[in-house]
Amino acid sequence: MSRLFMFEKPLGMRDTLPELYETKHSVRTAISEVMKQWGYQFMETPTLEYYETVGAASAILDQQLFKLLDQQGHTLVLRPDMTSPIARVAASKLLKEDLPLRLAYTANVFRAQQREGGRPAEFEQIGVECIGDSTISADGESIALLVDSLTETGLETFQLSVGHIGFVQEFFIDILGTEERVKALTTFLYEKNYVGYKEHVKQLTLSSIDKQRLLDFLKLRGGEEVIDSAVKLLENGKGKSALLELKQLWEILTDYGQAGTKVKFDLTLVSHMSYYTGILFEVYAGQVGFPIASGGRYDRLLKKFGKDTGATGFAIRLDRLLEALGKIEGKEPVQCILFSSERRKEAITLAAQKRYEGVKVVLQDINGVTDIDACTKLYDEVVMLVGNAGKESAR
Amino acid sequence: MSRLFMFEKPLGMRDTLPELYETKHSVRTAISEVMKQWGYQFMETPTLEYYETVGAASAILDQQLFKLLDQQGHTLVLRPDMTSPIARVAASKLLKEDLPLRLAYTANVFRAQQREGGRPAEFEQIGVECIGDSTISADGESIALLVDSLTETGLETFQLSVGHIGFVQEFFIDILGTEERVKALTTFLYEKNYVGYKEHVKQLTLSSIDKQRLLDFLKLRGGEEVIDSAVKLLENGKGKSALLELKQLWEILTDYGQAGTKVKFDLTLVSHMSYYTGILFEVYAGQVGFPIASGGRYDRLLKKFGKDTGATGFAIRLDRLLEALGKIEGKEPVQCILFSSERRKEAITLAAQKRYEGVKVVLQDINGVTDIDACTKLYDEVVMLVGNAGKESAR
Repeated sequence: MSRLFMFEKPLGMRDTLPELYETKHSVRTAISEVMKQWGYQFMETPTLEYYETVGAASAILDQQLFKLLDQQGHTLVLRPDMTSPIARVAASKLLKEDLPLRLAYTANVFRAQQREGGRPAEFEQIGVECIGDSTISADGESIALLVDSLTETGLETFQLSVGHIGFVQEFFIDILGTEERVKALTTFLYEKNYVGYKEHVKQLTLSSIDKQRLLDFLKLRGGEEVIDSAVKLLENGKGKSALLELKQLWEILTDYGQAGTKVKFDLTLVSHMSYYTGILFEVYAGQVGFPIASGGRYDRLLKKFGKDTGATGFAIRLDRLLEALGKIEGKEPVQCILFSSERRKEAITLAAQKRYEGVKVVLQDINGVTDIDACTKLYDEVVMLVGNAGKESAR
Repeated sequence: MSRLFMFEKPLGMRDTLPELYETKHSVRTAISEVMKQWGYQFMETPTLEYYETVGAASAILDQQLFKLLDQQGHTLVLRPDMTSPIARVAASKLLKEDLPLRLAYTANVFRAQQREGGRPAEFEQIGVECIGDSTISADGESIALLVDSLTETGLETFQLSVGHIGFVQEFFIDILGTEERVKALTTFLYEKNYVGYKEHVKQLTLSSIDKQRLLDFLKLRGGEEVIDSAVKLLENGKGKSALLELKQLWEILTDYGQAGTKVKFDLTLVSHMSYYTGILFEVYAGQVGFPIASGGRYDRLLKKFGKDTGATGFAIRLDRLLEALGKIEGKEPVQCILFSSERRKEAITLAAQKRYEGVKVVLQDINGVTDIDACTKLYDEVVMLVGNAGKESAR
């Protein structure tokens, strides 16, 4: 192979070396234990799906999909998210009795990147989907489980913001009149470009009262009082049912002991995941510039797979959570038994005994090592079983 | 989307539903714990690699590779094995001091399938690589660790067969003279088509003595005595060094207490993995028609990544191991608390308490359920917290 490519990985692809791997593993385990305690069942779907099913149902931009042709000429995609594959399985195999279904996953998803040094093109998501339950209790459970999962990893400071995509849409369409104008204004919210939003509002052909309503909308962040402020901005009741849902959600999260502390309202919240239909949320933590988790209600996705039922869920970005946690676990101690062939059997017996006691032991033939000093430095304890018996030394 | 595709998955792709998922998870955990006890460090590499590096270095047939073009026009492959990616990382980042390196992985690999109902196109391998150690002790360790790992899963009956690719090649070339004729005969061994092998030998233009040597070669299976039988088949010492390695390996495995029981010789063993250079092995178990694990020494692969050093390792096919184990874990008991909103807080508190005690608890708003009887049947225990307090019932 050419030297140019010898060590290279495709754009946005990363190796996970042992120390980070173990940290990732223990964070993943902590979260999945909580999800299992809440009665969620883990499952797995294939990395490759048909473009026509999962690719089209997912909310990821076409240019971000990794596509390939199979030998039968169908277009396949590397799954860009897990919500659509889980919806496919739930609709086809699991939802037979129309009972609420609680599923969980931990899986790598794929989103092609355009430039070097940018975001990862493959990353792990750990998440849940509660399918077939349209109550606000299910939304509350999603949020409460997310907060509990993150807390279990030892993450101390994080903020979960809750909004409602139905509220934003109804409020905007009531003022702006056309979907096109709603879309133009919403784009600023996606980008969290509030300066751009304000400038855009000023240039709109609207009454000064409506302009002020759109500007006041940006202030809808905080605790329970946000709902009352939002109600005041409404005209002819448009958007009111969404606010009632949020009010009910707040009561539920109060019962979970989370409202107002870890959880706050941000009614300007929108998502690039176009399948959300109701309550949605995202979590920021520490200095990480992107959400470490996000989720929400998606009541129309299952219909694409032939089942008309409500659903809600969330996904945690493991890479961003690790960044927020900021720690790499200390390497676990490993001992080494260096042996020569005369004392091989003794070395094997000693290693077996230590491993049985829970110690991690490398068993190393001394003939396999050129630099013995460098080798012994790698381990917390080294036992030398070399030459004739009775001459072992430890350091 | 069209109904035709709605629930379909690409050829050879499978979903893993919750019960199988948990079984897989506990088998994977059992094996990785053993590997860690032996001082192996887990790591992860990307699903996509450049065709020019890992695709070309891997021993998988080109037609089995899933290929795609990235936006820069490079050909990418879904990794068809883990040995080549680990070699890439070891050579570029980890092997700096030329000390033996013990790495482990558990990862899905991808091999395109030609027809419906055939083999899986995506499957999980769990394996190790011991890189930078050319002693037979490292080969012995690979085999001993594989036997220990499989034993730890509860697999009772399995057979590990050990051969030596160097022996087969030298023995064949000595008799047949050309690489082309060696390749033709070796193909029958790949396919384990011993009838075809014998017929092929009879048709060769060789002395009757050499024909008999090739036929006797097929009998080189069993315990230590196989080495002596093999020595008798040799002329002018070709293949002898390989047999000495096997003899030494047998002594090592005797020290591990494995020679002759779980481990036997099969000198007719060859592999479709073309990178093997020395001792190689495979494991069959139960009624599973394919090896559940295989491995061997690959002393030239690292050189492709710029480091000229020896290596050995193995991979266990998790799907085939599960087939051999033949059991699906019993579903863990899950309780359900059905509540109405009046008693939500009480329900949340009770759920938290039970979860804290280690019980898996689903918390279900009764308004989210249409068929309450069907719902309660799903759980091992149901607590109803509905209506006014004091009226709860349990079943």
